[in-house]
Order: sequence, then structure tokens, then C-alpha cells
Amino acid sequence: MSPFRGLVGFPITPADEQGRVDTEALRRLLRRLVEARVPSIGLLGSTGTYAYLDRAERRRAVEAAVGEVAGRMPLLVGIGALRTDEAVRLGEDARDAGAAGVLLAPVSYTPLTEDEVYAHYASVAEAVRLPLCVYDNPGTTHFSFSAALIGRLSRLPYIEAVKTPAPSAALVADHLRALRGATEAGFSVGCSVDWHAQAALRAGGDAWYSVAGGLFPGRCLQIVDALARGNDAAAAALDAKLQPLWDLFTEFSSLRVMYACANFLGLSRAAPPRPILPLPEPVQHRIAAVVEQLDLA
Amino acid sequence: MSPFRGLVGFPITPADEQGRVDTEALRRLLRRLVEARVPSIGLLGSTGTYAYLDRAERRRAVEAAVGEVAGRMPLLVGIGALRTDEAVRLGEDARDAGAAGVLLAPVSYTPLTEDEVYAHYASVAEAVRLPLCVYDNPGTTHFSFSAALIGRLSRLPYIEAVKTPAPSAALVADHLRALRGATEAGFSVGCSVDWHAQAALRAGGDAWYSVAGGLFPGRCLQIVDALARGNDAAAAALDAKLQPLWDLFTEFSSLRVMYACANFLGLSRAAPPRPILPLPEPVQHRIAAVVEQLDLA
Repeated sequence: MSPFRGLVGFPITPADEQGRVDTEALRRLLRRLVEARVPSIGLLGSTGTYAYLDRAERRRAVEAAVGEVAGRMPLLVGIGALRTDEAVRLGEDARDAGAAGVLLAPVSYTPLTEDEVYAHYASVAEAVRLPLCVYDNPGTTHFSFSAALIGRLSRLPYIEAVKTPAPSAALVADHLRALRGATEAGFSVGCSVDWHAQAALRAGGDAWYSVAGGLFPGRCLQIVDALARGNDAAAAALDAKLQPLWDLFTEFSSLRVMYACANFLGLSRAAPPRPILPLPEPVQHRIAAVVEQLDLA
Repeated sequence: MSPFRGLVGFPITPADEQGRVDTEALRRLLRRLVEARVPSIGLLGSTGTYAYLDRAERRRAVEAAVGEVAGRMPLLVGIGALRTDEAVRLGEDARDAGAAGVLLAPVSYTPLTEDEVYAHYASVAEAVRLPLCVYDNPGTTHFSFSAALIGRLSRLPYIEAVKTPAPSAALVADHLRALRGATEAGFSVGCSVDWHAQAALRAGGDAWYSVAGGLFPGRCLQIVDALARGNDAAAAALDAKLQPLWDLFTEFSSLRVMYACANFLGLSRAAPPRPILPLPEPVQHRIAAVVEQLDLA
């Protein structure tokens, strides 16, 4: 039960205006993932607004998730923080609550050097002692990993995976090859960016770290399963069907769209943490229409 | 006593490994600024590592600074935070402790839209009710203000200034003109980026938000004073003399260099917050040599 294989679904973390997590709504979202039998659940990813929740709320979210999932699949928990000591504390909290693995992004304010990021990961991995996935997401962290740095990190104890943003289909094979070349066999190379994920899996990615998979796991699993059966044409067709959702993601960001979807489905009544604003009403109507048109409910 | 005119010196905030502020060392740094009679002091700017300190420590730093400065010059306090409600609380803390103004950067993780940033500023300004400077620093916040957005913000109550990164001498006049054109007379347009600041002041900038000025206020004030006397040649010569310091800033970042300088001068014994690492010994020796060569002590 590796947390770094196949579909990893990342739900939103519904919370009130003060950043208090609505654990009942979170449990509803997790129940969908358990019922769909996703191979792994990614709690408190970027879509799970980990960066906006304090330590106590992040711990409450992990405890609620561990209770709901009850060991039926591994729970991967985001522990990113600006300070190294805070990331260590968050990792210890996640471990003590029962996480199977942790996901660590190099959150930055002052731009970081490669050596600083390396030392940050080394300190956290050594203290937390759980399988760790390097979370590469330059769009939010403003740090870009070289393949060489991923290679150095992969040789540290506990660092077992990378979550890399998949480039377009034309580039993804080369991108994965560079990461494979820098790391040893058994190191998991998985991809985010839902609208490139099908191509990334076809090119040999080990995992799909998925925003859509955090709310619509069945539809994403169909794609993964078609590829596992070698039916690339079916996978491509299933992916193409979701294009209206991918278009919304690129236009409004997947996080904002997921809040609108979860609320439309009655699973939550949450707004993203301010300063992020809920999407305007007309956009929410467009999103609802796509959810119905694609029969995503 | 506007906090947004002339030289604004931004000291580091010495703290221990756990992020506990060393208020004695901070007071020593502030005493230099008071003795040099800087027009304004910028506490908890980017160089003051506001992003890495929690609310309680930021409040301790402000209280120590208010005590040390004792009203002899205005104190401008950085209140940036990822969450809007946290920025409000930090602003209220700064106001209640005696700050003269606040400096607010649009810190981001999820990339923000213009409307989100506008609403963030409106909420904070309305709650805090202190003169507010919009802190534009895309290198750390990953949000770039358009002149039009600065214009919209300048029409909100309490928003009285912008701190904009000065582009090179060839571009700075156009940059300031665009901001002047978008804002009303009396709105303060000031610049950061020390190695472009002399040109920015010559082009009519209202303030120099200075990292070097947080530790070497005398040398920076000489430049400001020469320009005030209309002696541009003397100002350019004084600025040129500091080129070895500017070169260190661009090579290693001004924050990392300032820690090395303050420690070399015996004013602090602090490391930047991890994951930021102290500069390697040989670099620290180079920095010490520049401090001595330029007679900066």
C-alpha cells in the first residue's frame, strides 16, 4: 500500500471564515474517495489549502481523516511550511496521528538556494521518519527543482517519491526520463496537472496526484484503469470527455473550481480562505452546468 | 512625520533557532538608526523576516521597537500574512503597540487575482485604520501590481503610499511616471532595491525603502542629503562608493548579507530563519572585508 502509486486524490479542506476546519464536510468528501477505492488519499495538498491552516487545524484535519479512512488506503499528508522547524512539527503531528506518508513542498518567501532546500528536506525527513514525497510545484512555491537536486534528495533516507508538474504530452516523456535518470529504480516519479496526467501516465508516471480525483475519483480511476489494461485509446477518450473541466481549471484555477463543485454537489458550504475569493455567481453557474453535462455527480 | 518620506531603514530582526526574537539585539540595531536620525524605521520588512515570525514574536518585536524609538521617528511595521484575517490581527497588534504606519505585502501561495488583492487591502485598511503602504515585491510575494491597481488602492481610505521595486536608472523615470499618473497628488511613491535607489530618488521618488539603510544609515543618508541639496554628482559618487556592497546584495541577496554584516559588527549573533542558511565562511570573510574596506562600521 504505497501512498505514491496510481491515483492519489486530493480533496479540498472545507473550513469556516476563521480557518476552522469543518471535519464533518471533510469526512463526507473522504467517504467518496473511500467508496471509490482510490489507491491513495492526499490530505492537505495545495487544493487542501494546507498553507492557509494553522497547526492545530491541520492536526484536526489529519485526525478526522485517519478516523474516516480507517486504514483502507494510505493517507498522504501535506506538511509544507515556511520554517523548517514548523515543517518538522507538522510532520511529527501527521505521523503521530497515523499518516502513511508526507508531502513536503519547499514553500518560500525569500527565494531559496538548492543547498537550502536540500538541508530543509534532510532535516524534515530525518525527524519525521515517514515515507516522504518531494512536492515540486513552482507555481505556488516559487522554487524549481532540477533533476540533479531530485537525485540528491532521492538518496536520503525516507525520501521515496517526487510529485512533479507534468508538462504537455509532447514534453512529458523527456521530463520523466530526466527524473528517472537522476534517481534509482524504485523511486516513485508521479505527476500533477490533471489535464496532462493521462499523457504522463502513458509515458510511465508512477502516480497521478489529482485535484479532480479528490472529488470525482470514479472518472479519474476509469482513465487509470484503462491505461493499466493497455487500452490507451479508451483512456484518451475518457480524458477528452473531461476537457470542459480541464478548461475550467486552466481558466479559474483548479482550487477555485473545486470549491464551486463541492458546494454545488451539497458536499460542503465553504469558501476558500481569504484573500482567495469564491468565484462569481455566473462562473459558478457555468461550473454547475459542466458538472451536470459531464454527469460528474 | 510621515513614515513614507526620505530614507526608511529596514533592520534585520535577530532571533534564535526557534524564532524567538532577541529584543536586546534588535534594540541595538534600532539605536543606530535613532542616533543617525533616519526619517523613518521599517520594522519587520522582508529583511526583518516578518514572514518567518509568528504573531506573538512579531508583537514582541514591535513593542521592543516602540520602547527603543520612543517616538523620535515614525515606526512602519510589516503586517503581511497569507490570510486576510491574520493580516488584520497583525495590523491591530501593530496599531495598539504604537506603530505610525503599516506595510502590507500581498503574500501569496495560491496565485491571486487583482480583485482578490484589492479586497485584501480594503479589508485590512478598514480594520487597522493606520496609514498603509502597499508593498510591491514580486520577488517574494509573486504578485505584480499594475499601475491601475495601485491607482484603485490609492483611492481607499488610509492607503497613502506604495513601495515599488526600482527598475534600472534607464527605466525608473517612466516607472514612477506611470504610478504618478495612476494616483493622486500627495500619494507617496517610494522605491526599494538599494542599488537603483539613488537614480530613483533623482527621478522624484518620495522615499527610499532601504536594506542597507537598516544597518548603515549614515552612508545612505549622505546620498539622500546630497540629492536634497541638488548635488547630484556627489550623490552619484557616494552611491558608486557603495558598489561593492550592492554587488554582494545581488550575488547573495541583501538579507543574507545583512546577517553577516550585523554579526561581523558584533551587533547580533543570529542566523536567518531556516531553511535560509547562513552564508558560508569564505563568503562571510569577503563581506567582512567589504565592510572594512568601505569603512561601514
